Amino acid sequence: MNELLPRPTSVILIQCSDEKGLMHRVSGALLNRGANILENNEHVDRLDGVFHMRTEFSGSFHPSGLLEELSILLPSDARISLRTQAPRQIVVFATRESHCLGDLLLRQLSGELDARILAVVSQYSELRDLVARFGVPFHYIPIEKLNRPEHEARILECLSAYRFDYLVLAKYMRILTPGFVERFENRIINIHHSFLPAFMGRNPYQQAYERGVKIIGATAHFVNGELDEGPIIAQSVIPTHHSQDARAMAHAGRDIEKTVLARALELVIEDRVLVRGKRTIVFE
Amino acid sequence: MNELLPRPTSVILIQCSDEKGLMHRVSGALLNRGANILENNEHVDRLDGVFHMRTEFSGSFHPSGLLEELSILLPSDARISLRTQAPRQIVVFATRESHCLGDLLLRQLSGELDARILAVVSQYSELRDLVARFGVPFHYIPIEKLNRPEHEARILECLSAYRFDYLVLAKYMRILTPGFVERFENRIINIHHSFLPAFMGRNPYQQAYERGVKIIGATAHFVNGELDEGPIIAQSVIPTHHSQDARAMAHAGRDIEKTVLARALELVIEDRVLVRGKRTIVFE
Amino acid sequence: MNELLPRPTSVILIQCSDEKGLMHRVSGALLNRGANILENNEHVDRLDGVFHMRTEFSGSFHPSGLLEELSILLPSDARISLRTQAPRQIVVFATRESHCLGDLLLRQLSGELDARILAVVSQYSELRDLVARFGVPFHYIPIEKLNRPEHEARILECLSAYRFDYLVLAKYMRILTPGFVERFENRIINIHHSFLPAFMGRNPYQQAYERGVKIIGATAHFVNGELDEGPIIAQSVIPTHHSQDARAMAHAGRDIEKTVLARALELVIEDRVLVRGKRTIVFE
Amino acid sequence: MNELLPRPTSVILIQCSDEKGLMHRVSGALLNRGANILENNEHVDRLDGVFHMRTEFSGSFHPSGLLEELSILLPSDARISLRTQAPRQIVVFATRESHCLGDLLLRQLSGELDARILAVVSQYSELRDLVARFGVPFHYIPIEKLNRPEHEARILECLSAYRFDYLVLAKYMRILTPGFVERFENRIINIHHSFLPAFMGRNPYQQAYERGVKIIGATAHFVNGELDEGPIIAQSVIPTHHSQDARAMAHAGRDIEKTVLARALELVIEDRVLVRGKRTIVFE
Repeated sequence: MNELLPRPTSVILIQCSDEKGLMHRVSGALLNRGANILENNEHVDRLDGVFHMRTEFSGSFHPSGLLEELSILLPSDARISLRTQAPRQIVVFATRESHCLGDLLLRQLSGELDARILAVVSQYSELRDLVARFGVPFHYIPIEKLNRPEHEARILECLSAYRFDYLVLAKYMRILTPGFVERFENRIINIHHSFLPAFMGRNPYQQAYERGVKIIGATAHFVNGELDEGPIIAQSVIPTHHSQDARAMAHAGRDIEKTVLARALELVIEDRVLVRGKRTIVFE
Repeated sequence: MNELLPRPTSVILIQCSDEKGLMHRVSGALLNRGANILENNEHVDRLDGVFHMRTEFSGSFHPSGLLEELSILLPSDARISLRTQAPRQIVVFATRESHCLGDLLLRQLSGELDARILAVVSQYSELRDLVARFGVPFHYIPIEKLNRPEHEARILECLSAYRFDYLVLAKYMRILTPGFVERFENRIINIHHSFLPAFMGRNPYQQAYERGVKIIGATAHFVNGELDEGPIIAQSVIPTHHSQDARAMAHAGRDIEKTVLARALELVIEDRVLVRGKRTIVFE
Repeated sequence: MNELLPRPTSVILIQCSDEKGLMHRVSGALLNRGANILENNEHVDRLDGVFHMRTEFSGSFHPSGLLEELSILLPSDARISLRTQAPRQIVVFATRESHCLGDLLLRQLSGELDARILAVVSQYSELRDLVARFGVPFHYIPIEKLNRPEHEARILECLSAYRFDYLVLAKYMRILTPGFVERFENRIINIHHSFLPAFMGRNPYQQAYERGVKIIGATAHFVNGELDEGPIIAQSVIPTHHSQDARAMAHAGRDIEKTVLARALELVIEDRVLVRGKRTIVFE
Repeated sequence: MNELLPRPTSVILIQCSDEKGLMHRVSGALLNRGANILENNEHVDRLDGVFHMRTEFSGSFHPSGLLEELSILLPSDARISLRTQAPRQIVVFATRESHCLGDLLLRQLSGELDARILAVVSQYSELRDLVARFGVPFHYIPIEKLNRPEHEARILECLSAYRFDYLVLAKYMRILTPGFVERFENRIINIHHSFLPAFMGRNPYQQAYERGVKIIGATAHFVNGELDEGPIIAQSVIPTHHSQDARAMAHAGRDIEKTVLARALELVIEDRVLVRGKRTIVFE
């Protein structure tokens, strides 16, 4: 099957309070190691004085020395990440709908997704067969008579077997508790089937139908404590038509749901996304 | 300047409760008069059983006979409109921003807008000079110490001199009272600078910035009693970027505001829009 | 897995030379059988006087009587099709890329595609494993030392075992001979990875990169005798960026390729597409 | 009327052959002058090894010293531009259509366009009245019995009175000679009413109609020696429909023509565009 070769570049991602000379320091540390900067994006949020930078460079040297030097050169609040060559690892949560999950499985199979799907978790068993076709472990964790924390405790137990970077909610139709979410800050990616903040909560297509909008959307976002309020990573829309009821909208919306989720995941695993409060800085 | 010729066709627009044979009756009434149907769109809302139809036809005959016959042939709740060849007449309300108003004036000048702008009304005088350049009457009706009903009474007095089909709110930044709105049911068209129902009310771009959306929009809708809740006619969106603050979003949003308003007005004056509760049926 | 129920409606699709009263005759024939028209679209091409109509109606009666009556009522050049309830049957051709084929297989699995994939044909064996996962027959018909007609003869032999409505070329990277194409007029649907007519022929993404376009596209079309010249059914575009080389464009383009192909197939199997020369009439 | 304040930042734009340390040198030269970098975009074309960079910074110092230092620090083929605070000056060429020209005049009036329209040149007189409404000089230079070089000689004579940065062809329907074009390399911006490279040359909407495309577009590009082959700055598309003939497409296309031209001009005057052969690097 067709494969994408690993790119022979590294990525460094920085967020810290702004001060003069930051780019000069970072570029100096890279130059000292013989690196060549191929793509650089820097953005200072002028309202709150926060510096964001993504640098993609070629050159091979030991990363720990660079990280150490940068932690000295940059302000003390700096968050620095250096992308390793190894692909990101993810666990996918799903419920009953197959389109987002199936799309991710296909992308992995073709080498199009630069990440490895370690496992799929679901509170229903319907998707077991689909996941098995792709040779990925499927964990059926039914809700039964469990309350939410008990159910999540079982999920956490299951997750403890995996070393993952991100949890991807591929139409996982169950709300996670704040306690669960806090464990994985900016590491849970959800797809919501509306153009947020329009139509938060349940049945967004029914809401969209009743409101009579002419465009419907999908939103991929990090999950935080408040439902559908997390930092948005990517959004997309398609036109809708008076002849479409909520069911037809849901049918049509699947295409953007799966595309936006995959796009958001790609942005995250390529280290293109920084979070600042409810907003994201996305260096495309 | 470049002109668009009037199209040698007529349009009939019908909304009524559905029953079998409606299309057969309407097409029969047209056939009896020697008309040829060139475009026909019919839609039955299956949830509430309402029939909607738009028919564009060639053929010349006296319209009153057709209207009379249709009112007998169709269910008693039928609303029937037959588009006359004469262009629609509109009055535009604006405040201080020039982009939507200027765009409509330019479209009229070039013959692109199949409507006549009879007058412009504003509570400020800033746009007087622009409107004068296009030879259109400008009515400056300041708010001064007037309360809302008193201000609207002056506007109504001003409007009484004009025989208009539609009022177009081209970034008119003042809320109309329910009493005013009720006088002109489905005849007031507003442009709201967000993708409704997201960011209703004040400062939608500031709201959009704070929420961190990746797409911003504009919505043209009929105005009814509730603010930003009227039936939507057209919507459009553009991507936004983390480097854009609320001011930059507002700058970028102007292009879709003016385009969507002009598009909605075009749909309405071409008799392509039917209203059903909070929804519209738009035969494009 | 989630299923879409069959819609309890029928569709009739008509193309013929225009004359007065056609809609009246068709609606009369339906009324006589107790049918209720739910969606109707009619379009007369004013340049060449051709009538096109799509009618979706409820009501159960024997279709052959209606077809007979319409063939008498309508001009002698009329092409009439009446959609049966049974889902359309398709055979898919693919080469090595999995994204379009995999997407169709997933849509069938979820019940999202109102068609049945009878078999997959390929001149390579790479996709065999993927197709097997979905329980669909895979026919590997290698080119070996065969010339084009010999190869196609083997394909035709293979196809003779299937009763299919449409052939779908899901990134089938081999040109079909005119002789092959003529057998299946308006029944072969291809996806081309550019916004046709820009970048016809080989390596469209390389062409797009070299030309420096800011938008790339995908086009689904019927295949006729001339390469990439068939009637277009659906097109879609996405923005591209100076940092994307031809390979990155190809990567990004996959999402619109698969979406547009699926959309075109959906339009065709819902009897929404009529062909007129190099153009299509699409009643959405 | 509403005005946009000048932004208190400067922009430096660099293009040169790539080598290690370029970003470090530039950021060092800025740091030495007390400047703070607020937005930085750097892109190395990996196919031909060319470095491109745009830096937006705050800080006030004398620009000539910086330019001098950079010309020493950077490779000898470096092209460096430092944006002055003064708005760009443009001359607009138009023919008979008013939508693009009128849109630019309106944008200037509202302060939305960060450029000054010095004059309008046309080979026809139709637009004189519109231009006069905005108090901008209009130069009617008829073709009469002049051949192309003679006509252009008169235009050049007219232009000699103005000190302009860019020539904007706002639907100027006359081909410029290579001799004329060469005088203003990368300084002439044209709007073509198709999605280039589809439908080059005459009557693109007629070509689009005949080909039966489902999307139409507009392209803003720099003009070089070959017709419609110049480096593309911005493109946009809208859906079209089988009911639209070439005339209706032209009507609908005006909205994207004017929007894309204005967008391209904005990108150019904000120093966001670099040209490399037939491609542009656009730092949005």
